[in-house]
Amino acid sequence: MQYAERMSRLKASDIRDLLKLTARPEVISFAGGLPAPELFPVEELKAATIAVMDEAGTTALQYGQTEGWAPLRAQIAQRLAKKNEIHTDPDNIMLTAGSQQGLDFCGKMLLNPGDVVIMESPSYLGAINALEPYQPRFVEVPTDENGLVMEELDRILATTENVKLIYVIPDFQNPSGRTWPLERRKQFMEILKKYQVPAIEDNPYGDLRFKGEYQPALKSMDPEGLIIYMGTFSKILAPGYRLGWICANEEFITKLNLIAQAAVLQTATITAMVVSKYLEMFDVDEHVEKIKAVYKHRCELMIDTMRKTFPPEAKFTDPDGGLFTWVEMPDYINTRELAAKALEKNVAFVPGSGFFPNGGNNSCFRLNYSNQPDDRIVKGITLIGEVLKEAIAEHAAKTGA
Amino acid sequence: MQYAERMSRLKASDIRDLLKLTARPEVISFAGGLPAPELFPVEELKAATIAVMDEAGTTALQYGQTEGWAPLRAQIAQRLAKKNEIHTDPDNIMLTAGSQQGLDFCGKMLLNPGDVVIMESPSYLGAINALEPYQPRFVEVPTDENGLVMEELDRILATTENVKLIYVIPDFQNPSGRTWPLERRKQFMEILKKYQVPAIEDNPYGDLRFKGEYQPALKSMDPEGLIIYMGTFSKILAPGYRLGWICANEEFITKLNLIAQAAVLQTATITAMVVSKYLEMFDVDEHVEKIKAVYKHRCELMIDTMRKTFPPEAKFTDPDGGLFTWVEMPDYINTRELAAKALEKNVAFVPGSGFFPNGGNNSCFRLNYSNQPDDRIVKGITLIGEVLKEAIAEHAAKTGA
Repeated sequence: MQYAERMSRLKASDIRDLLKLTARPEVISFAGGLPAPELFPVEELKAATIAVMDEAGTTALQYGQTEGWAPLRAQIAQRLAKKNEIHTDPDNIMLTAGSQQGLDFCGKMLLNPGDVVIMESPSYLGAINALEPYQPRFVEVPTDENGLVMEELDRILATTENVKLIYVIPDFQNPSGRTWPLERRKQFMEILKKYQVPAIEDNPYGDLRFKGEYQPALKSMDPEGLIIYMGTFSKILAPGYRLGWICANEEFITKLNLIAQAAVLQTATITAMVVSKYLEMFDVDEHVEKIKAVYKHRCELMIDTMRKTFPPEAKFTDPDGGLFTWVEMPDYINTRELAAKALEKNVAFVPGSGFFPNGGNNSCFRLNYSNQPDDRIVKGITLIGEVLKEAIAEHAAKTGA
Repeated sequence: MQYAERMSRLKASDIRDLLKLTARPEVISFAGGLPAPELFPVEELKAATIAVMDEAGTTALQYGQTEGWAPLRAQIAQRLAKKNEIHTDPDNIMLTAGSQQGLDFCGKMLLNPGDVVIMESPSYLGAINALEPYQPRFVEVPTDENGLVMEELDRILATTENVKLIYVIPDFQNPSGRTWPLERRKQFMEILKKYQVPAIEDNPYGDLRFKGEYQPALKSMDPEGLIIYMGTFSKILAPGYRLGWICANEEFITKLNLIAQAAVLQTATITAMVVSKYLEMFDVDEHVEKIKAVYKHRCELMIDTMRKTFPPEAKFTDPDGGLFTWVEMPDYINTRELAAKALEKNVAFVPGSGFFPNGGNNSCFRLNYSNQPDDRIVKGITLIGEVLKEAIAEHAAKTGA
């Protein structure tokens, strides 16, 4: 059987494959970016569903428009204005089956084979995977503790042809947990203006800030409409609905709508109506506060345990929000091997290499702190600490250090 | 702004754009392929949702596996065996956000730009649109009252290079309403075996046979695994969930899973669980019987009214199931112009040209009979009859006939 050329670029996601292994209840998994399920507002969403079915069941179960349920798009526009200082018309918003679908659609819209996509180094593994089928060349921009290094971005844009898209996560980045300060955001928008390249601002975690000061969205500083902003209900409500949105200028939205028509007709009507009804019946911000309190505690407990149990060679980030911390080990450590050893002890994490579009970087890994209760965080991190220390000791024995 | 080359192939779907216009309540629409909403089992689906939320709410709202909720895949496998004589393992099934997504994924898997896709002439407009972004060359196979003409297919395959995919709807085809008899199905499988080309069997309407004799699915005669079978809950339950499935050999399913991981991570967990619970709690076949009785009646009423009110120049199909009948007018009639005139009288149908991958064929149109009550069927068809007669009379006056 002959397949399309693009298929040679697709490989199984480390995370999705790990999710299968970590479904065993004895495994303490820090691998997925899974929200805490015990915080899902099950009763509230059930009540919202019952209300939708009682009030407008036949509409909810029928086909609808490609751009998505209009009242929900209006609610999203209101929330973007209130929370992110993004002032937009509901018609500049289209619903997607999670941000992952938005990434696929943007790749389809913008990329010919061989075109360049610029990404932070490291960046979200799922974004790399979403864009791979469009056969781009990935160029990585170095990052530091404040995120993407703007001088490097400027230099790359000045010297690279066919850059069609920049992909960034300025808030609590996946996988690093880092956030860009205001000055960098301003610099980024200046650079974007200078080179007139569109950029995706992926912001799944922005609402989950549990420390430090709010930083404005790039989209709120974007008079030229170069930012394609992506949001999702996966982290503030529930990922099981697969419901996100794209906010972008009219030209992009028109094209993305054509793509959505062809690829999937529309996002599920009932899902959009249930979430819309939930937002009408309940206070989502109150719910987000509960999530933040739990994630803050879990993050602090994890970082604290890492400080106590990880070897001094391990460097890690201390995020102000979101779901992840990022660990860098000495170059001689291979975290893919360590992940296998940890899994033998029933602990899981994602090795870091997959977060680099061009591979390499085998000595880092990502930890998720949102999904496990306290005792399992302490137990799991302690076990990983042991695995790390063993690896360091082995290396020392081998090199006679 | 520079877009990907594939974007030049995308245009708005006639149907999706008409759906917006026909949202006005005064419009009698035979345009969309919309099921009768009054038949949706709203109370039953509400009960199923409540049961899922009560029994496994946190699972339903969490991320799940890319291939989809395992119990539902097992239920689909059982149903395929019972209804379609397709004996398959649940692992040969993956869930999709409707068959439209399955079509997009198959295009991604199989097509390089310039590759050939073979389709019935006419064929489903949505399938053409789904494959367009992969920049294929479409080759159309003539059809007659028994569907695709197999000798023509054989001739085309013998003389055409780079054929990567065949797309067919053997049961109650969209748009023609025609069904292939057994002999043609056998011939098709022989031809497929001879040329070893994969084919999509799109079967959204197969369960909706209200007349005549059951014909076996191509997939049930496919020992070589060349058929990629697509099914959906849109027409037997509700399209608002966006839930369909692909049944195919292991190699295809593995590749389609990689594509789904990259494009959308997974189909919504909760949707799959609700439909699974519905199938467990209620008798879907009993529900399908109700749908069939209503559609049989509406189809007969529409055909009867067409016989009474359409001019003798109009030729149309008399389907044994599904949702559509297809009207062919003399060559001098332009149905895009007639559709505009009909819309002035608040009646809508889809002009036929869009159902031909390479355009042309401006004298035909598609009528849907599932979505309107009796009085509106009679009124709307009578109005269309007037529009058709006016057009015939105008032509006669012009040519002095």
